[in-house]
Amino acid sequence: MPGTQLTKAGPYLCRTSTSQCSSSQNTKELQPLMSNPVPETTEEKKQQPQGPERPISHQKFKAKLTQWLSYITGDMAVFGEWMKGQFILLQIVDWVLRGAAQVMFVNNPLSGLIIFAGLILQNRWWALNGFVGTLFATVSALILCQNRGAIAAGLYGYNGILVGLLMAVFSNAGDWYWWLLLPNIFMSMACPIVSSALASINSRWDLPVFTLPFNILVCLHMVATGHYNHHFPQILIQPRTSLHNMTWSELDYAKLFSSIPVGIGQVYGCDNAWTGGIFMIALFVSSPITLAHATIGSAVGMVSGLALAAPFQNIYFGLWGYNCVLACIAIGGMFYALTWQTHLLAVACAFFCAYLGSAIANVMSTFGLPACTWPFCLSALTFLLITTETKSIHKLPLAKVTYPEKNLIYFWKMKKEEKIDKQRKKQEQMQVKDVESQLKKDEIIVAMKKKDQEPLDVCTVEVQQEETTQSGTNKNSEAI
Amino acid sequence: MPGTQLTKAGPYLCRTSTSQCSSSQNTKELQPLMSNPVPETTEEKKQQPQGPERPISHQKFKAKLTQWLSYITGDMAVFGEWMKGQFILLQIVDWVLRGAAQVMFVNNPLSGLIIFAGLILQNRWWALNGFVGTLFATVSALILCQNRGAIAAGLYGYNGILVGLLMAVFSNAGDWYWWLLLPNIFMSMACPIVSSALASINSRWDLPVFTLPFNILVCLHMVATGHYNHHFPQILIQPRTSLHNMTWSELDYAKLFSSIPVGIGQVYGCDNAWTGGIFMIALFVSSPITLAHATIGSAVGMVSGLALAAPFQNIYFGLWGYNCVLACIAIGGMFYALTWQTHLLAVACAFFCAYLGSAIANVMSTFGLPACTWPFCLSALTFLLITTETKSIHKLPLAKVTYPEKNLIYFWKMKKEEKIDKQRKKQEQMQVKDVESQLKKDEIIVAMKKKDQEPLDVCTVEVQQEETTQSGTNKNSEAI
Amino acid sequence: MPGTQLTKAGPYLCRTSTSQCSSSQNTKELQPLMSNPVPETTEEKKQQPQGPERPISHQKFKAKLTQWLSYITGDMAVFGEWMKGQFILLQIVDWVLRGAAQVMFVNNPLSGLIIFAGLILQNRWWALNGFVGTLFATVSALILCQNRGAIAAGLYGYNGILVGLLMAVFSNAGDWYWWLLLPNIFMSMACPIVSSALASINSRWDLPVFTLPFNILVCLHMVATGHYNHHFPQILIQPRTSLHNMTWSELDYAKLFSSIPVGIGQVYGCDNAWTGGIFMIALFVSSPITLAHATIGSAVGMVSGLALAAPFQNIYFGLWGYNCVLACIAIGGMFYALTWQTHLLAVACAFFCAYLGSAIANVMSTFGLPACTWPFCLSALTFLLITTETKSIHKLPLAKVTYPEKNLIYFWKMKKEEKIDKQRKKQEQMQVKDVESQLKKDEIIVAMKKKDQEPLDVCTVEVQQEETTQSGTNKNSEAI
Repeated sequence: MPGTQLTKAGPYLCRTSTSQCSSSQNTKELQPLMSNPVPETTEEKKQQPQGPERPISHQKFKAKLTQWLSYITGDMAVFGEWMKGQFILLQIVDWVLRGAAQVMFVNNPLSGLIIFAGLILQNRWWALNGFVGTLFATVSALILCQNRGAIAAGLYGYNGILVGLLMAVFSNAGDWYWWLLLPNIFMSMACPIVSSALASINSRWDLPVFTLPFNILVCLHMVATGHYNHHFPQILIQPRTSLHNMTWSELDYAKLFSSIPVGIGQVYGCDNAWTGGIFMIALFVSSPITLAHATIGSAVGMVSGLALAAPFQNIYFGLWGYNCVLACIAIGGMFYALTWQTHLLAVACAFFCAYLGSAIANVMSTFGLPACTWPFCLSALTFLLITTETKSIHKLPLAKVTYPEKNLIYFWKMKKEEKIDKQRKKQEQMQVKDVESQLKKDEIIVAMKKKDQEPLDVCTVEVQQEETTQSGTNKNSEAI
Repeated sequence: MPGTQLTKAGPYLCRTSTSQCSSSQNTKELQPLMSNPVPETTEEKKQQPQGPERPISHQKFKAKLTQWLSYITGDMAVFGEWMKGQFILLQIVDWVLRGAAQVMFVNNPLSGLIIFAGLILQNRWWALNGFVGTLFATVSALILCQNRGAIAAGLYGYNGILVGLLMAVFSNAGDWYWWLLLPNIFMSMACPIVSSALASINSRWDLPVFTLPFNILVCLHMVATGHYNHHFPQILIQPRTSLHNMTWSELDYAKLFSSIPVGIGQVYGCDNAWTGGIFMIALFVSSPITLAHATIGSAVGMVSGLALAAPFQNIYFGLWGYNCVLACIAIGGMFYALTWQTHLLAVACAFFCAYLGSAIANVMSTFGLPACTWPFCLSALTFLLITTETKSIHKLPLAKVTYPEKNLIYFWKMKKEEKIDKQRKKQEQMQVKDVESQLKKDEIIVAMKKKDQEPLDVCTVEVQQEETTQSGTNKNSEAI
Repeated sequence: MPGTQLTKAGPYLCRTSTSQCSSSQNTKELQPLMSNPVPETTEEKKQQPQGPERPISHQKFKAKLTQWLSYITGDMAVFGEWMKGQFILLQIVDWVLRGAAQVMFVNNPLSGLIIFAGLILQNRWWALNGFVGTLFATVSALILCQNRGAIAAGLYGYNGILVGLLMAVFSNAGDWYWWLLLPNIFMSMACPIVSSALASINSRWDLPVFTLPFNILVCLHMVATGHYNHHFPQILIQPRTSLHNMTWSELDYAKLFSSIPVGIGQVYGCDNAWTGGIFMIALFVSSPITLAHATIGSAVGMVSGLALAAPFQNIYFGLWGYNCVLACIAIGGMFYALTWQTHLLAVACAFFCAYLGSAIANVMSTFGLPACTWPFCLSALTFLLITTETKSIHKLPLAKVTYPEKNLIYFWKMKKEEKIDKQRKKQEQMQVKDVESQLKKDEIIVAMKKKDQEPLDVCTVEVQQEETTQSGTNKNSEAI
């Protein structure tokens, strides 16, 4: 339920905005998520003359709250640093939780915990499979000696959780069919292999691998076994072969509205609206911009479904939403710096993704496969490959991507530095011009003096003249 | 009707060939299409002693004609330059017309106009959709701040016209179903996005994107909606599931012959032989080499269809031709410099493309999709990726590609320069050798002389000789 | 029958191991396959003091045998060198034979000859088609001016033999349908084109093209014609649409065991266990490591088939084995240097490949296509794209790849050189440190002396001090 979160968001934002005296309303909202506990911030506060009318205890409370919030929002970098010194099993739990949240591009163990809570609410067997998947994917990455920083950010776990979850969701053998854990472990251990291989390709264009390893491995498992299998049967998915009934008067607006959180829930294969709502809280904890784009994406998916005359059941079930959610988050502030242009681009990408989702679902159904998140991957990769001549669509280098709010700060800093550089260059050019014009004047005087004394040296003066600009030369020749 | 054009081509070529005194028959044919109105050409003419037996008025007429032809043939670069100063709407019309012709690799607004005439002859609703597609694709490229030069060359429009046309052709809702314009506009506006993304990938191998964006977007629209859709139903395409009748005695040679222009027409989805004939005129206006390869390609496609036992109806309908037409144009002089080897390669590519066309049509029919121009794209890209150790298969850098005749001139110039460079190097090496042998002789003499006078300084003199230049050493040794 | 070869392998290895006095058992086994007839080896032998207890004639015999074995094992480089001077037709025979063996990554004409023997045992018509395919692929590569070294290594022939063989295997027109040679020749001549194009792409990641050209071209031919074709009908392949019977008590262990050589035979489309056994001899002649991994791969495939509940007939028929055979060879010592880690990686790749094989077979059956060797290509490429931070998984540069034993020697040499380099650097650093500490001492003395004489120069000494390390400075200040 997005509404619930938004009311919570109100006071949350207020508390933080009053504690700081920054000028723009926009930055105030984002500040708590990005405040690195660096001494300079505290120094700034000291320098600011604090009004005596405010009670000091109140201010202190707010400062503490901000500090405290900075520990649990954003990417929880401080917590991550602290974790580095802990026991390895504890670290792995942190990595697994971050991996669970990284499906939504969120690098935050608290969000991961909330997401696991949502999964347990949906189905405990699925949640178990998701946990096993994340765990073994992370362990496999450790065995394969992958980059420790990436493992710690959960970047090897998020495909694992999806593989585990969706293999359980699409299994036709019913819940608590324990044999399923075997292919689950095999496939989640293959995640880092496929991730690493895809990264070798995508890194040439500085692109992330998104959930491609999950898509590849789940499709591989499902189509390798199929519906007619003794050990690991899959649910039956068949292509549409006739026109479905569609009466616009039957449209249920309540269900349509609830399809927005359901769409967010379907990112993890969950059709429960409450679970979707819990996921929205998880997103909000880390980054409100991400939550906003997730909601927009889900709504765009719903609208596209109606425009393309999809069966209402599919729309209610969130099947049109989850890809758009991910695509909209990825383009809207995550891999592009958020500006109005990229915001519109994110909305366009969500529409494109919905179209593509329908197309891929139809194609995949021929093989008895679901669409997975192929539509999101392909549309987001397409939109990230665009090159334009405008500066307001700025793709962040992959190594600099963190979360929308921090990305934005990075982008603003970069722009400010560019501006300062430009101004400095302009000033330098101005100075150079001044010096040059002064020099020319001097030359003229020298030339005039020389004319009186040594008329034979005119040639050398002429050589100098060639180096000066034309106007100078003109004056010079007049002078001569 | 290719015959019509060829008879027209005769006098056209004669006129131009007589007005210039170039030596090779080959260059004569190509000259009018490539003559840039550069002053040096006129200077050359002045230098050539003109025979008094020719009437001067006749000559002047021919010179004027050549000049005039150079304005409307090739890529109409002069017209394009002039257009840059005009009102933006007029410019957009130019870009749209060039875009319409760029489907066949022709960058010529006159050809575009003729092609639109052909489309109107075929079906006015299709023509309207094609125009809307080109227009919105071009506008979208402007909004996305794409390269202005590429937009002006129609490189963002040609996918738009194909998207618009083919969405209308494959729609099952009948002509003048106005709602179709909505997805048409959406998809044609997505063209520059997909083009830009694909260009980011293909540019790593210096390859063009061809009509891949069109293929992707039309297939996306068709498979997203499908035959069983309330809003945008597509025509029903199903895979072959039984052996068709095939009696060779029933082969209709007239239809078989007319399948050649129909094949060219099918590039734009048109099955009317007259429309195909009009398109051939459009090709001829810009570049006769392109027309020749288009005709060869269409014929190769027809032959391949017979060889692979395709239903005669498909062959008559031009379905075996259009991909080969495009593939043969692309390889035969457009992206490779035209030599006998690349001409044969173009024919081989056309055969390969026909084979691939049949394969892709069968695969796509499983999803209810037509083959579009996938076969052309894949076969042309494959043949452009070839690397060989022979110099006669020379792939032009993408930035230098214009049209076959101009490409050929560029290639010849490059080869001539290489030859001159080689000769110069050879001569220099010869001179160096002469000097060296002379030096050795001198050295011996010097050494002998020195031996008499200062036997201790020989080493230092030798060291100096190595450091000084050859000519200097010569003088030096003479001086000594 | 792998057992037969293994008993033969015993004495073979004994003979060679006794003839050389190397220390490790491992290297002994590999030595005969890698011994380049370079004079240094013989020199080494001379230097080694030979025990007088061994009869000299026996030793001589063994030395000769080793020499003789080195001529027919490995990549027969000496024979290849000698061939360069021969008549072109004889050379082409060599290239064709090497091409036939290159399917298994074996660059050895003797192995090629044995493989052709195995093919003739299986089916003479297939063998003929395979020969025609290899021949025309090689000739086409010559026409296209491809790299002569690659042609001579059979790298343009192996796709040809597979194209020829499998087009015959999957043809529904029966044996000795001579028209089939036409598409066979066309497709095998297209092999070098597709190979060259794919190499342009794969070389960016330093990857080989494997059998991708064969996969593309055979699938292209099969789907272009299909089952319902008058000229070139293909056998009917249909997707599974119901649950097959599976009673574990019916499992035939003899057939299961024979599926291992059958799996190796299926690389060439042969279902005869004796043919598979002959292929194993061919592998052993060139490289025992290759044979070992081929056997492991085939076994892994069989086990995977049982795990995924595949119909027993498919497992007996070797359909689960051949891709794993190739994948296991490629990863286990061919493109990675063989260590315990890469050996395990090869086994993992074989399991992954088996899974992928089932998936691709199901997808392709929708289009009436067999899986060909797509699973091998995709899984091996994936595993070769992995990047790790461990040094024990070392991907050999493509230009250095020969055969597992030689690769291993190359890898060991490289490692040894690295070690020596490290030690040298350490020593140099030690020396530098010694010199530095000596210098510091000298400086102190100088400073002390200066203090007595010129107290004004202290500043310059201090400047020097800043450049020295802290400890030195400390001592200095104490000294002052």
